[in-house]
Amino acid sequence: VDVELLAIGTELLLGQLVDTNTPYVAARLADVGVNVFGAHTVGDNKARIVAAMRSAFERVDGVISTGGLGPTVDDMTRDAVCEALGLAPVLHQPSVDAMKAMLASMGRPERDLENNLDQAYAPAGAYVLENPNGSAPGFVAFDARGKFVASMPGVPSEMKAMLAERLIPYLRERYDLRERITTGIIHTIGIAEAEIDRRIGDLFASLENPKIAVLAHGYKCDVKVMAKAASAAQAEALIAPVRAELASRLDGYVYGDDDETIEGAVQRELLRRGETIAVAESCTGGRVASALTATPGASAVFVGGVVAYDNAVKIAELDVPPEVLATHGAVSEETARSMASGVRARLKTGVGFATTGIAGPDGGSEQKPVGLVWFALALSNGSVIAEKMNFRGDRHAIQARASTFALGMLWRRLKE
Amino acid sequence: VDVELLAIGTELLLGQLVDTNTPYVAARLADVGVNVFGAHTVGDNKARIVAAMRSAFERVDGVISTGGLGPTVDDMTRDAVCEALGLAPVLHQPSVDAMKAMLASMGRPERDLENNLDQAYAPAGAYVLENPNGSAPGFVAFDARGKFVASMPGVPSEMKAMLAERLIPYLRERYDLRERITTGIIHTIGIAEAEIDRRIGDLFASLENPKIAVLAHGYKCDVKVMAKAASAAQAEALIAPVRAELASRLDGYVYGDDDETIEGAVQRELLRRGETIAVAESCTGGRVASALTATPGASAVFVGGVVAYDNAVKIAELDVPPEVLATHGAVSEETARSMASGVRARLKTGVGFATTGIAGPDGGSEQKPVGLVWFALALSNGSVIAEKMNFRGDRHAIQARASTFALGMLWRRLKE
Repeated sequence: VDVELLAIGTELLLGQLVDTNTPYVAARLADVGVNVFGAHTVGDNKARIVAAMRSAFERVDGVISTGGLGPTVDDMTRDAVCEALGLAPVLHQPSVDAMKAMLASMGRPERDLENNLDQAYAPAGAYVLENPNGSAPGFVAFDARGKFVASMPGVPSEMKAMLAERLIPYLRERYDLRERITTGIIHTIGIAEAEIDRRIGDLFASLENPKIAVLAHGYKCDVKVMAKAASAAQAEALIAPVRAELASRLDGYVYGDDDETIEGAVQRELLRRGETIAVAESCTGGRVASALTATPGASAVFVGGVVAYDNAVKIAELDVPPEVLATHGAVSEETARSMASGVRARLKTGVGFATTGIAGPDGGSEQKPVGLVWFALALSNGSVIAEKMNFRGDRHAIQARASTFALGMLWRRLKE
Repeated sequence: VDVELLAIGTELLLGQLVDTNTPYVAARLADVGVNVFGAHTVGDNKARIVAAMRSAFERVDGVISTGGLGPTVDDMTRDAVCEALGLAPVLHQPSVDAMKAMLASMGRPERDLENNLDQAYAPAGAYVLENPNGSAPGFVAFDARGKFVASMPGVPSEMKAMLAERLIPYLRERYDLRERITTGIIHTIGIAEAEIDRRIGDLFASLENPKIAVLAHGYKCDVKVMAKAASAAQAEALIAPVRAELASRLDGYVYGDDDETIEGAVQRELLRRGETIAVAESCTGGRVASALTATPGASAVFVGGVVAYDNAVKIAELDVPPEVLATHGAVSEETARSMASGVRARLKTGVGFATTGIAGPDGGSEQKPVGLVWFALALSNGSVIAEKMNFRGDRHAIQARASTFALGMLWRRLKE
């Protein structure tokens, strides 16, 4: 079945609101095999909404709209659909009953229903889509030729629930869409996109189902494996061997699958080793600690940290020898090593980790440019590993990239 | 002048890429008085691109497209524009010269030009839009009736520069668009959107130019003042009295104007007082330190911090008395006060700040539910101020809201 999407709202055409509904709906429809032929945005203008729908009927089987279903005068999707399909609006009694029940549960008087009663109308003969997260129901209505409009609210949380629980099941049943796309994700860190392409590029061409795709996010790259199948079990059976092949070709860089995060992978390695961690941060200013405390259960491995921005704090709280700072400077391998060992000793943890660098915009020199960052990891056997990076970008980008690199280094070194 | 926007790219219709270009272009065009009548997305299919452009010509003066200008076979915008307007593609020699110069500067051989030469073609008679940030130029071309297509690349950084530096000046000149909208922003923190509405609601109705609008971001609310005028100076003259009126009505909650941030406002108050700061964080896990180190020049006021996740760290590094933890618990007013005083004394700063709370999902109780956070500020006169909040949401939301509240509390208390 071929459709076009229609986002309704004047604020979208003024650029005051970013339309996240269209890509979301498009992706979910692609997953179940609905072909999205085009997408359009129109303002809160009934004639233009009707014209956009009629124009789409010349190209595709139906239109899926978001927005304009609320109770105000600006909301004219319902009337426009009736006109475009040549149907009369009819009061849908179950929707009235649902609204009454909602008002009662909120302790509001039944007369408040008046303001919302418009929302209980649907085009004659429509299949009404209940709204699990709000008051405005949606609907799917057909004209005499079988062209349809499916309308959902513009509030993303309401639209998403209605799409997943009502509209997609309806479309799958009505158009006999048996296959759907299931996506597995393999997360990598520390390997460039070009190197991933070199290692797995032949699979792009040779694989048909599942297909694969690479998405780069800085030091992290995701490889997506998309399988088309009639059931989740069949999809998993298609994905599993490809996942194994990718894991083998990208060995050493895969930190997790699907919903897993690099913070979670670091936590997992520490749990496996039965070790705790403390961090000493200069240029990352607390970002590594923030990441390590983001995952539920962080307290099992994360003991604490010191943000040693000023050199006096490096000396007093991390026991960095003043002569190390005087001889090598705050941004140096020696200082990073000393900070990592210092925080490990002071906070009595299994491992200690440190960052020190120049986030800019000031403070750089020819020998130590803005973006230079030293990282050090003090292990429980007393050894200390140091790495150096030069990051590009502004202060914000350097702090963010250094923090991501830090998590990657922690994971890579801790799993060794 | 009325236009429609056209985003070109099959990946947009698959939901694999969110189209941020359309709202960005729409907002910039609204600023200069170009009316955006509708917006459309089509795939990489020449016939459909041509059909979308011709359909738009029935409604508006021109189409502004993004995407499909690259050198690959998928990129068919250039050919589609020529067909839609009935123009032949012509080699644009200055674009060839610019590409040659770019290759030379990158040390690449001139034969690499072949792969990119398609990009140097433009519809006959077109006004070419140079690309300050990339290789593919854009263009504006007209048909015999005066209908136009303006095409820009889909890469946001290239599109944004071309729009601001080339296309908007061209449209303003050609369509004699003298007025443009200039926006001033007043940033508030700690006042609810409903209370702002109560205090300034009459201005929404009574003001025509400038207009005002409120945007809520959690504890922060922005009030936008949008003036239409022929010059920046005239716009500022319209904005200034409204800014003053808003500042007076929202007195005590306005932390900055335009590009200013709450982190920057805290830094400014500390500089004004001539004081330094150290922070002790439990549930916020380094997020307050991260925010205070985000602004260039942070080292003038921010000395350092301790992420005291484990109680042992609160005792050893912040000198919280074990009996305070035993009697009142880690999440308590007494512990927060002790952490703030402790970090101030240990790091030898003017003020010390502390957070301790329950981010969840575990660890809550009836008396101390998930979301409870205590904040304390130890001042240079020895006094300590504590505040308590109950935040809703998941772990991520609680950590983020507590950090924003912390910055608001710091700013509010430090300016007293």
